[in-house]
Amino acid sequence: MTYHSAVDVITVKRDGGVLSDDAIVWMLNAYDRGEVAEEQMASLLMAVFFNGLSAPELGSWTDCMIASGERLDLKGLSRPTVDKHSTGGVGDKISLILAPLVAACGAAVPQLSGRGLGHTGGTLDKLESIPGWRAFLTNDQVREQLEDIGAVICAAGQGLAPIDRKLYSLRDVTGTVESIPLISSSIMSKKIAEGTQALVLDVKVGRGAFIKTHDRARELATTMVGLGTSHGVSTVAQLTSMDAPLGRAVGNAIEVTESVDVLRGGGPADVRELTLALASIMVGLVGIDVDPASRLDDGSAYEVYRRMIAAQGGDPDAVLPLAARRTTVEADRDGVVQSIDALGVGVAAWRLGAGRARKEDPVSAAAGVVCLVREGDVISKGQPLFELHADDDAHLQLGQASIENALVIGEETVNERPLLLERITK
Amino acid sequence: MTYHSAVDVITVKRDGGVLSDDAIVWMLNAYDRGEVAEEQMASLLMAVFFNGLSAPELGSWTDCMIASGERLDLKGLSRPTVDKHSTGGVGDKISLILAPLVAACGAAVPQLSGRGLGHTGGTLDKLESIPGWRAFLTNDQVREQLEDIGAVICAAGQGLAPIDRKLYSLRDVTGTVESIPLISSSIMSKKIAEGTQALVLDVKVGRGAFIKTHDRARELATTMVGLGTSHGVSTVAQLTSMDAPLGRAVGNAIEVTESVDVLRGGGPADVRELTLALASIMVGLVGIDVDPASRLDDGSAYEVYRRMIAAQGGDPDAVLPLAARRTTVEADRDGVVQSIDALGVGVAAWRLGAGRARKEDPVSAAAGVVCLVREGDVISKGQPLFELHADDDAHLQLGQASIENALVIGEETVNERPLLLERITK
Repeated sequence: MTYHSAVDVITVKRDGGVLSDDAIVWMLNAYDRGEVAEEQMASLLMAVFFNGLSAPELGSWTDCMIASGERLDLKGLSRPTVDKHSTGGVGDKISLILAPLVAACGAAVPQLSGRGLGHTGGTLDKLESIPGWRAFLTNDQVREQLEDIGAVICAAGQGLAPIDRKLYSLRDVTGTVESIPLISSSIMSKKIAEGTQALVLDVKVGRGAFIKTHDRARELATTMVGLGTSHGVSTVAQLTSMDAPLGRAVGNAIEVTESVDVLRGGGPADVRELTLALASIMVGLVGIDVDPASRLDDGSAYEVYRRMIAAQGGDPDAVLPLAARRTTVEADRDGVVQSIDALGVGVAAWRLGAGRARKEDPVSAAAGVVCLVREGDVISKGQPLFELHADDDAHLQLGQASIENALVIGEETVNERPLLLERITK
Repeated sequence: MTYHSAVDVITVKRDGGVLSDDAIVWMLNAYDRGEVAEEQMASLLMAVFFNGLSAPELGSWTDCMIASGERLDLKGLSRPTVDKHSTGGVGDKISLILAPLVAACGAAVPQLSGRGLGHTGGTLDKLESIPGWRAFLTNDQVREQLEDIGAVICAAGQGLAPIDRKLYSLRDVTGTVESIPLISSSIMSKKIAEGTQALVLDVKVGRGAFIKTHDRARELATTMVGLGTSHGVSTVAQLTSMDAPLGRAVGNAIEVTESVDVLRGGGPADVRELTLALASIMVGLVGIDVDPASRLDDGSAYEVYRRMIAAQGGDPDAVLPLAARRTTVEADRDGVVQSIDALGVGVAAWRLGAGRARKEDPVSAAAGVVCLVREGDVISKGQPLFELHADDDAHLQLGQASIENALVIGEETVNERPLLLERITK
């Protein structure tokens, strides 16, 4: 590999030029070795924020991050592998239902997941509310569980795309998170290294998502689908609305409970709708001709869930932690629920203790918000709108202050808004 | 001062917003204290590169850099103060002539200068080729010499705008040098802190300057004139051509010799022309009614020069260092000199030893290039075009390799191109 000057690499991108594969590989590896300084990489990331990366540049960038770590080998399993990634929403417990459901259809689902930060929850945080459940598995354990049960939800190993971890920490403090090529390469490098054959991307758009507009969500989805496809991973993206929270429960244990409701054939309609839509794409991607709804209704998805939880040390029959303090928020007038702001509810759940501000912080298993009404509901004064759960009064008060403006009551009839917005395929 | 989040400051600028005075002051001071990390400031600088700074933002930014250090107090001198700053060219020895000339007209010229980097020379490097001459003076010595002689050329103190020094080092390694607001605030913060009443800016544009286009030079000039004026410094900018080298000599000692030629009423016509043009602006800015040409021709400017050099320990009659190795570059055909590339000549002088790649590097006093022909000259095969000076054969060969394409010979008649392009006043 040729030596490059970091300043030259930065100025080429700054001035709208195209970086060679060689320059990208040099820059990222030199950064990983500490030869390119944090301030130089920060400057390049901001230049990428403004000038983007071409498809070949993005390919080189992603390849380099994949090559910086290990790759899981999931070949040789008796089932085809298919995974799902969500860009993060409020009340998004879909993974907990989807992984066992798609396993019940005959695929293997290697859901290597992360934790929540800020107002969006993390799948691992939710499952850790189940007594005994362990997030950490070895690569061999992942393989065995996939072969045996078909579904794994566990912590993504530190060995996958390690440059991405270093870059992500830098982006987080330098205002360079919100860049489509940087988001795409971060997500896709880990999913490609994970070794899945197929992937569905749930790209959230709206008030409660970090992407606010349909156009930008489409751009992100198209970029990620292109990256997956060019790396041999059959990839489809589903754009979904994240204006209002998904389902009723926003927290950790309360989301597990709601997920079990859906796995047993009940639960909120929107959670079931989105789970089935994503499951249909997933089974289609790996050529399995099964209607996922039948696996919810015949109890086989729930059975896989119980085995998946038990295999990782969890007791599927355990009573989940309950909040010591609860209160309800009531309507101050008659009217129609015009909107429920996912961001407002997510922030309230976070303040109640369900989320973390820094990645070292612990989360409360029991804290969260239960939404008692939906957009369009006709309500009367004094009717409970939200139930707030917390471990102590201090958190309860923080949650109460945050949720105040999350629900708007008006006079007009509200039509149901679609949850599934657009599907992006290659 | 309110606390701000560095990420918020960065993202506001990144997204095209306007930073409050409070946010700018907080960010720069927190950076100076080490509370804002280098990578965060680098990211902000790149965002400023793309989105610029509004006039109020630039004012706050510049004020904050001035306030970070000391300000010279030049009030109470018996002469009005006026300074010159050049954005850097090849063969630009104007300061050496201009400071004593304008002093001879009755003003005080506090030329606090820097060293050369890359292909552009530095005034201090040139004067240091005079045996005994010292670049470092205390603030009291500067004042005394201004009162007594009227001209000082010395190293800018470390106490002026210290945040700028830290920022400049960061810009240098992060590809964020070429930003008009950042260049403007860097130059003007030091000139304003220096305490001069009036200032002329020589903004170079062309092949040998770091600004290549007239439009961009005009933008930089207008920004700096605005900053100076709003800070009570009467400021005028002169845009000048830097396509070909200024004068014949490009180096250190050889430029001092050429400067003395001009001070004694001779020397290259272009050096005399530019010096007189800038001197006229300077005396005009401080209301002195003297024709500067008379002070060159009557020997009084040269007399001030001798006193200025002697006051700083230099011997104005000393024999300057001579190069141990010399060679000439000859024309390979008959024709007309179509162009002499200032950048090519500057790089050759640098490679010969006259310049430095890093600011810690020493420079050779004797090395450099003497241009033996001018654009438009009719030449014949074998005629010497350049004389190269170096301390050893290795440097001589580096210089020979660099200068090869610096001069183009053709058939067409070449008309003289104007040196003075445009004057920008408030």
